[in-house]
Amino acid sequence: GSVSGAYAWEALPTKAPEPADNPTTAEKVALGQMLYHDPRLSSTGTVSCASCHNTMLGGEDNRPNSMGVNAQTGGRSAPTVWNAAFNKVQFWDGRAASLEEQAAGPVANPIEMGMKDWDAVVARLKAIEGYHEAFTKVFGENSISQENVTKAIAAYERTLITPNSPYDKYVNGDKSALTEQQVRGMNKMAELGCTACHSGPAFNGAGTYQKFPVNSNGYFEAQYKFKRDKGRAEVTNNPEDEHMWKVPTLRNIALTAPYFHNGSVSTLEKAVKVMGKLQLDKDLPDEDIEDIVAFLNGLTGQFPKQSMPILPSTPGRLAK
Amino acid sequence: GSVSGAYAWEALPTKAPEPADNPTTAEKVALGQMLYHDPRLSSTGTVSCASCHNTMLGGEDNRPNSMGVNAQTGGRSAPTVWNAAFNKVQFWDGRAASLEEQAAGPVANPIEMGMKDWDAVVARLKAIEGYHEAFTKVFGENSISQENVTKAIAAYERTLITPNSPYDKYVNGDKSALTEQQVRGMNKMAELGCTACHSGPAFNGAGTYQKFPVNSNGYFEAQYKFKRDKGRAEVTNNPEDEHMWKVPTLRNIALTAPYFHNGSVSTLEKAVKVMGKLQLDKDLPDEDIEDIVAFLNGLTGQFPKQSMPILPSTPGRLAK
Ligand code: HEC
Ligand code: HEC
Ligand code: HEC
Ligand code: HEC
Ligand SMILES: [Ca+2]
Ligand SMILES: [Ca+2]
Ligand SMILES: [Ca+2]
Ligand SMILES: [Mg+2]
Repeated sequence: GSVSGAYAWEALPTKAPEPADNPTTAEKVALGQMLYHDPRLSSTGTVSCASCHNTMLGGEDNRPNSMGVNAQTGGRSAPTVWNAAFNKVQFWDGRAASLEEQAAGPVANPIEMGMKDWDAVVARLKAIEGYHEAFTKVFGENSISQENVTKAIAAYERTLITPNSPYDKYVNGDKSALTEQQVRGMNKMAELGCTACHSGPAFNGAGTYQKFPVNSNGYFEAQYKFKRDKGRAEVTNNPEDEHMWKVPTLRNIALTAPYFHNGSVSTLEKAVKVMGKLQLDKDLPDEDIEDIVAFLNGLTGQFPKQSMPILPSTPGRLAK
Repeated sequence: GSVSGAYAWEALPTKAPEPADNPTTAEKVALGQMLYHDPRLSSTGTVSCASCHNTMLGGEDNRPNSMGVNAQTGGRSAPTVWNAAFNKVQFWDGRAASLEEQAAGPVANPIEMGMKDWDAVVARLKAIEGYHEAFTKVFGENSISQENVTKAIAAYERTLITPNSPYDKYVNGDKSALTEQQVRGMNKMAELGCTACHSGPAFNGAGTYQKFPVNSNGYFEAQYKFKRDKGRAEVTNNPEDEHMWKVPTLRNIALTAPYFHNGSVSTLEKAVKVMGKLQLDKDLPDEDIEDIVAFLNGLTGQFPKQSMPILPSTPGRLAK
């Protein structure tokens, strides 16, 4: 099959952009990987970033809503951390401007990691000897701080990239990388207008906000309750931002069911149907849905081999 | 320093004994590593074996009692999984005869992983395509079953060995591997009679049961409530087994605070004091405690470098 139309399909870059004040280094990434996987960043010692954004799986938890300390749940579903480095803004409502800013949130969020505040996090890390050494290597002496914890985590997240999906191989010239059906689905994504919102190499609209649902539909609303959450307006209190959402990436979308900000839709087929109806006002025929889902399966990339971090131990006298 | 007395100190073997019907192979270990780290073995999708026995840390959770699905807690503290392969029997009360038998317990335990039963676990794994392939490689076609899940996990656990601690190096001839103080502590362990119970290369008494506490002590009992749990008698209902416990390993003991079956003692210093008083009827002087704790710190071994498993993905249509 070959690609029709004028849409400019792009492969995923193998490096994520990094901010000038937080360059990626191997040692910083290693420290960030430790912190990201360390459950001692939570009040109960049971919840790490990886609990909700599992780096052994699709980068989230495959739950409608995540489960934080003491089994508390919130209203939103965990987005994947794979390729989050290609989001211009973070969170469903884009309320964090960078990965660094985002990483400051969960630890002191009472229903996520439940630490009292960042002082408590820093105190806990300072009590772990091995972290002194690791931070010293990366940021200099006495450098355990909120700023450096979030910098290290963000640097690690910038390495969580999944290139070389069948789609990327296809775009890079290997025409056998996608099946006929997948190429049909790819063309339909452009023709129908999915790529008007899900544009760019990460299919995440390059940081734009879009309304969801664009069209009201009582049947879907009764089932999925999409309008309960006002999206961006919850942070800005601006009525114009009601039900405005960051366009989410479609990379590895086959691995990250259930779908949408509230995780209300359990399969990719249904998610595509919902998008067709609510965003494009179209009742997509089953054949289109199947072709598009086949294509979306071609967005599953290669997961980098990672080594399991060995976390610096809790000194006996401080554990509780 | 040099070692006095007749006690035969032994280094940790670098291979654990394996049962005839479950030989360790690289592919089985890889599968076991996946299953061990897979939170989909729990009802909520949030709890894996590694949640309570963290392989990035000391092999447990540094909590007095563990936290299972829906934040439920039980009365006992999670023992380390590092070197559990050298236990003759498993659990504080020794109620499982092998790692295979032990691994069958947590998944359907309502306060641990909370699955309805093993049929539910097997059904869930069967729905994950990647597991079909992995099981086929190891056990042949259509081989996803309770028996094979627990065999694979046990085979993986047999690789969780931490040799080459300073103690092992010392015993193997490197006299500079332990400090003078550590050697003093080592001698005191034998002289006082700690090694009468904590014998063998894993300091776990080669599968013997011992009473704890041997001596009654109102002061410690008021603080630590050791007698609330009847130990082995809870399973056997035999009055002779009241407060009988498997002798736990002292390997990596510096990493696994808090201590004892109920995790009631927060530091190693206090744990040694408790042992002296309750098991040996001795008020150990601070100096002895410090020497012994220094020695016990020399039992922290080398943790094998592991790769992070990439778990087979949840197919979109089955996630909930
Ligand atoms: C208890 C569950 C939980 C924990 C723990 C957690 N997260 Fe999240 N994470 C979420 C949820 C839910 C969202 C979406 C919230 C929203 O958009 O309002 C999210 C959003 C994100 C995003 C934005 C992704 C995107 O596409 O917008 C990133 C990045 C992220 N988390 C990284 C982390 C890091 C780093 C940590 C640890 C410091 C962490 N998370 C801990 C549940 C969790
Ligand atoms: C007008 C903008 C727009 C159009 C057109 C659009 N989308 Fe979306 N899409 C969004 C937004 C915004 C969301 C996030 C909605 C939410 O969860 O609140 C989203 C979510 C999704 C999701 C779920 C993502 C996740 O991680 O849960 C999928 C899948 C998806 N879109 C596919 C498509 C397909 C296929 C089409 C075309 C048939 C399409 N979209 C058309 C804006 C759009
Ligand atoms: C919710 C916490 C939790 C989960 C999940 C859990 N365990 Fe445990 N584990 C414990 C506790 C607590 C004990 C001690 C119970 C007892 O002795 O009565 C234990 C005991 C053990 C032991 C015995 C070690 C010894 O020295 O006696 C092994 C081995 C073990 N678990 C392995 C596993 C494996 C494998 C899994 C997953 C299939 C698992 N555990 C899941 C908490 C947990
Ligand atoms: C009579 C047998 C016996 C003697 C003597 C003995 N122990 Fe123990 N030890 C045990 C048993 C049994 C336990 C487990 C008790 C429990 O938690 O229920 C234990 C537990 C421990 C623990 C805590 C292990 C953990 O993982 O929580 C430490 C540390 C320890 N012993 C060190 C020592 C030292 C040091 C000495 C000598 C001063 C000593 N023991 C003497 C039988 C003994
Ligand atoms: Ca999802
Ligand atoms: Ca414990
Ligand atoms: Ca312990
Ligand atoms: Mg989710």
